[in-house]
Amino acid sequence: MKLTEEQNREIKEQQSQENITKRVTAPELENILYDAIPILDHGFIRVVDYMGNDTSIVQSARVSYGKGTKKVSTDSGLIKYLMRHWHSTPFEMCEIKYHVKLPIFIARQWIRHRTANVNEYSARYSILDKEFYLPEPRHLAAQSQSNRQGRGDVLNGEHAKKVLELLKGDAEQTYNNYETMLNERYDGSIIDKDARGLARELARMNLTLNTYTQWYWKTDLLNLMNFLRLRADHHAQYEIRAYADVMLETLKKWVPITYEAFIDYRVGGTEVSAKGKELIKKLIDGKNISLDESGLSKREWNELMEAFEQTEKLI
Amino acid sequence: MKLTEEQNREIKEQQSQENITKRVTAPELENILYDAIPILDHGFIRVVDYMGNDTSIVQSARVSYGKGTKKVSTDSGLIKYLMRHWHSTPFEMCEIKYHVKLPIFIARQWIRHRTANVNEYSARYSILDKEFYLPEPRHLAAQSQSNRQGRGDVLNGEHAKKVLELLKGDAEQTYNNYETMLNERYDGSIIDKDARGLARELARMNLTLNTYTQWYWKTDLLNLMNFLRLRADHHAQYEIRAYADVMLETLKKWVPITYEAFIDYRVGGTEVSAKGKELIKKLIDGKNISLDESGLSKREWNELMEAFEQTEKLI
Amino acid sequence: MKLTEEQNREIKEQQSQENITKRVTAPELENILYDAIPILDHGFIRVVDYMGNDTSIVQSARVSYGKGTKKVSTDSGLIKYLMRHWHSTPFEMCEIKYHVKLPIFIARQWIRHRTANVNEYSARYSILDKEFYLPEPRHLAAQSQSNRQGRGDVLNGEHAKKVLELLKGDAEQTYNNYETMLNERYDGSIIDKDARGLARELARMNLTLNTYTQWYWKTDLLNLMNFLRLRADHHAQYEIRAYADVMLETLKKWVPITYEAFIDYRVGGTEVSAKGKELIKKLIDGKNISLDESGLSKREWNELMEAFEQTEKLI
Amino acid sequence: MKLTEEQNREIKEQQSQENITKRVTAPELENILYDAIPILDHGFIRVVDYMGNDTSIVQSARVSYGKGTKKVSTDSGLIKYLMRHWHSTPFEMCEIKYHVKLPIFIARQWIRHRTANVNEYSARYSILDKEFYLPEPRHLAAQSQSNRQGRGDVLNGEHAKKVLELLKGDAEQTYNNYETMLNERYDGSIIDKDARGLARELARMNLTLNTYTQWYWKTDLLNLMNFLRLRADHHAQYEIRAYADVMLETLKKWVPITYEAFIDYRVGGTEVSAKGKELIKKLIDGKNISLDESGLSKREWNELMEAFEQTEKLI
Repeated sequence: MKLTEEQNREIKEQQSQENITKRVTAPELENILYDAIPILDHGFIRVVDYMGNDTSIVQSARVSYGKGTKKVSTDSGLIKYLMRHWHSTPFEMCEIKYHVKLPIFIARQWIRHRTANVNEYSARYSILDKEFYLPEPRHLAAQSQSNRQGRGDVLNGEHAKKVLELLKGDAEQTYNNYETMLNERYDGSIIDKDARGLARELARMNLTLNTYTQWYWKTDLLNLMNFLRLRADHHAQYEIRAYADVMLETLKKWVPITYEAFIDYRVGGTEVSAKGKELIKKLIDGKNISLDESGLSKREWNELMEAFEQTEKLI
Repeated sequence: MKLTEEQNREIKEQQSQENITKRVTAPELENILYDAIPILDHGFIRVVDYMGNDTSIVQSARVSYGKGTKKVSTDSGLIKYLMRHWHSTPFEMCEIKYHVKLPIFIARQWIRHRTANVNEYSARYSILDKEFYLPEPRHLAAQSQSNRQGRGDVLNGEHAKKVLELLKGDAEQTYNNYETMLNERYDGSIIDKDARGLARELARMNLTLNTYTQWYWKTDLLNLMNFLRLRADHHAQYEIRAYADVMLETLKKWVPITYEAFIDYRVGGTEVSAKGKELIKKLIDGKNISLDESGLSKREWNELMEAFEQTEKLI
Repeated sequence: MKLTEEQNREIKEQQSQENITKRVTAPELENILYDAIPILDHGFIRVVDYMGNDTSIVQSARVSYGKGTKKVSTDSGLIKYLMRHWHSTPFEMCEIKYHVKLPIFIARQWIRHRTANVNEYSARYSILDKEFYLPEPRHLAAQSQSNRQGRGDVLNGEHAKKVLELLKGDAEQTYNNYETMLNERYDGSIIDKDARGLARELARMNLTLNTYTQWYWKTDLLNLMNFLRLRADHHAQYEIRAYADVMLETLKKWVPITYEAFIDYRVGGTEVSAKGKELIKKLIDGKNISLDESGLSKREWNELMEAFEQTEKLI
Repeated sequence: MKLTEEQNREIKEQQSQENITKRVTAPELENILYDAIPILDHGFIRVVDYMGNDTSIVQSARVSYGKGTKKVSTDSGLIKYLMRHWHSTPFEMCEIKYHVKLPIFIARQWIRHRTANVNEYSARYSILDKEFYLPEPRHLAAQSQSNRQGRGDVLNGEHAKKVLELLKGDAEQTYNNYETMLNERYDGSIIDKDARGLARELARMNLTLNTYTQWYWKTDLLNLMNFLRLRADHHAQYEIRAYADVMLETLKKWVPITYEAFIDYRVGGTEVSAKGKELIKKLIDGKNISLDESGLSKREWNELMEAFEQTEKLI
């Protein structure tokens, strides 16, 4: 990731602020506020604003439950209780805003989370930077044979090299032709002073999906956790997980108690179906049970055995 | 409005904070942060947190429009442009959180605005305070004859007095019986030590709709303006308008440039239909036109004439 | 539940329709379309429209996954897979609309589910019917001692009788005074021809929270299941569960395959935290483990043991 | 637009249904149900399901307003009233579902409307078709000089030809390399049986933004009108307007009364700011007023004069 001089200056300026406020703060998060944390080859993520911290959740819950909550001794105990019982509204009382630079094909996955506010760089209005995502060789994996939306083995050196050449060549060529059609280069210089350029809203269609875009993305803590639960998961595509992993770190700095409960109850937890409960119960009781008797499909059976590390029972 | 000692202590404590932050602040709003501003007889509204200010809107818009926005000379010019052309997403980048105490029948109107986060005091969990709304005599109006959801003349003194006696008597009696059923008083004291109380989740059904409740209510700036546009309007019921009017003041302190644009383009503006445009055009051109020729209903005609202060043309 | 003659005529009329459509239908649901199913003493629920059935979910999923889904042999297999892996968007492709009559204090719980469309009877505009909820004696329970938002034992006969008298007396008195203030009775007759009535938007505040209201409530299948998962649960207040239970039956008639998967994976399932997984794993492996070693709170331990019916391990 | 044989068969099958239902229907819409209406060079839009019609709006409004609405004589009068006064919830009671095939860069504009349900074809899961958007020469316009997000004059023949060659060449090349990387062609045939293909979730990043995708898109009538108001407007990019224009036609067939009110009050209407009202008032009163005195910016002045066709007053 290479920031422009202008971006560096803006970040410096933002970070030099020392404002006095009566609002609650999150000191650990303040330490990295506005920092551009590099992700992939040209992407980054920056926390640019936030509202509330762990105490805001507790305070909202105490408004809801009134005098009754006084007996819960600790903030941590209350937050764990709320997380365990899916009391979601207190977590909506905190808000965070990120500035993200990311490849368009990842932006298209990301935007499927609707309960967020977004301002994206408009290629209708301005010219996109000449930056596109090229995976590192260790992330160039073959299509999985077993899982239609997964990756298998990493490609060998020669194969990877060839793929990268294709990706790089096509991205550069389409970007160059984008400039040709615009009659303008990414730095704003005009190519042919006597000619007119194609409308930006049309020329952009020639770019490939690994071109980088950027946006401001703002959401509340509950919806952030919903996002992270899906996108920091090993089923998620590596490229979006790279962002989610960094966001998990910002979550930890922002609301450390909530983070801990989130890891225990959501990220590290598992769900068991009604039939699965029957099976687990019998296993605990030391009874033998066959796949057929369980009523589970083979796939469900194996998912359950893996969740509880019963590898010798895999079928 | 009478705050409990505990509430006063909490507010003092919150206001004594002096935290350092790199986030942007809204100095005018900081001045009233946590203050309980009285509304109606027992209600209040407090700003308890916020995120962003006018510059946050400008910054988000500049991310969207990229290099292209640099030419717009002023923040004020850009915000007015965004407001005029319904570019809504930059306004979603600011967030505010209120603590509100309000009668239940007003809470029921308020909650119809769905794009907000809410934590309400739970009468399933705790006992509601013995506080209910009694209108001032000057707000006790007769049913409007012309508008089914409006108010007409104020009731005369005798009539108003009788209404207030009924409201007060019923609220007190139902609250007393609420305590009797609970076998517990609002201060937590038990009425009959040898008896059991009815479940709180049941007993609450005996309360009248003017009983006060409270909640934390958090929304973004765009949805706050949508709320205020409807609820600070003269068509809104007086009791919710009383809250909206105070919120308008907090809007002014928070984002003064946005406030000004909002008043010009939304609150003070009007909408003209396709048929209405034809009519106005002809009036400007000095042509006479009858109600029939206009294609408008009598009601639409009058609404339009009032909007442009053509009182002599009212039908 | 007593329907007015007018309502009965309207339902008859709606049910007599025989329209031809190219849309998919849900024959079992058609059988009960528009029926007013009684709930509590005066409430009801009616399915008044719907869109899609189980095949709509399958079709949307196949658009998403493209040619890849062809190998999944059955609709049932695909729907179970979607449910298990929280692929939520295909379930959003079905929509249902209910007409519900319910006490106001239950409406206030219900409305907290924001992702739905609502049109409620307006007491600002019209006069509410003289109907209020009075629980059956077997539902008049004492406050739970252990759970602040739960019920304990049923009140004994004498006690229950007294509570019912209070509820009934207060509801009738406040309703009568509502009429007095309005100077109009619920049937539209004027009380005193020489007097003016208080504005409806004000008079309504005198009603108690067990007064019945009604609304049209429309939501998609995903959000309906989210609602039912919380409200058909034994932690939910009995009065809202009574509605949720009937809605579960309509779900079964509408989308029988989805219903079955919903019961297996959501309603009958359970969640296990990271720490809980460790504990279950050790139990399956036949190892002893103490509460302290588990890292769980006593409450979490017991909830887990109950989920897997290990009653002898309760602490 | 060329449908595959399979798609044609599916459409035929869907259209041959003759189901009996007690639900209300929209006969004009039934006539085109499932039809693939061609848009742009390879795109289409199909109405695949709907719920409700004009009478559903009326019915919901009558539930809200209760006995009070009986006096409004006609459905048309009531719908116009609701539209004029922004009573939005009754319009949420109708729902429609489209199947849309569209270029990715248009899909990215479209998805910014968040209050809708979407199932998009997954290029993580399956291979995208070899279809990309190439504008007709008459739509190849130069960048507007005055409006950064608009189009100016159409390119001349030679220029247009060159642009099309670039677009076509790049789209074909990047698609071919997409197949090469996948080691699989769009028809499913394997290129090199001894080689492995790159994961689909990675290979897709090589495609250009004019590649076609498809989705199911479902929304309620209110949000559909919000979408159409912005996207059928002359400020919208031509390519999305092409879809919006066809959707306007489906709106007309579905809810003809609502359509008429929508055209009068929204599409054909205009908004006037507080300052604009002052100006219009003075013009009607026959007074002269200068730009300076009006308090409007030059741009606002001109927009207002254009709205009311006062072309001789343009500055």
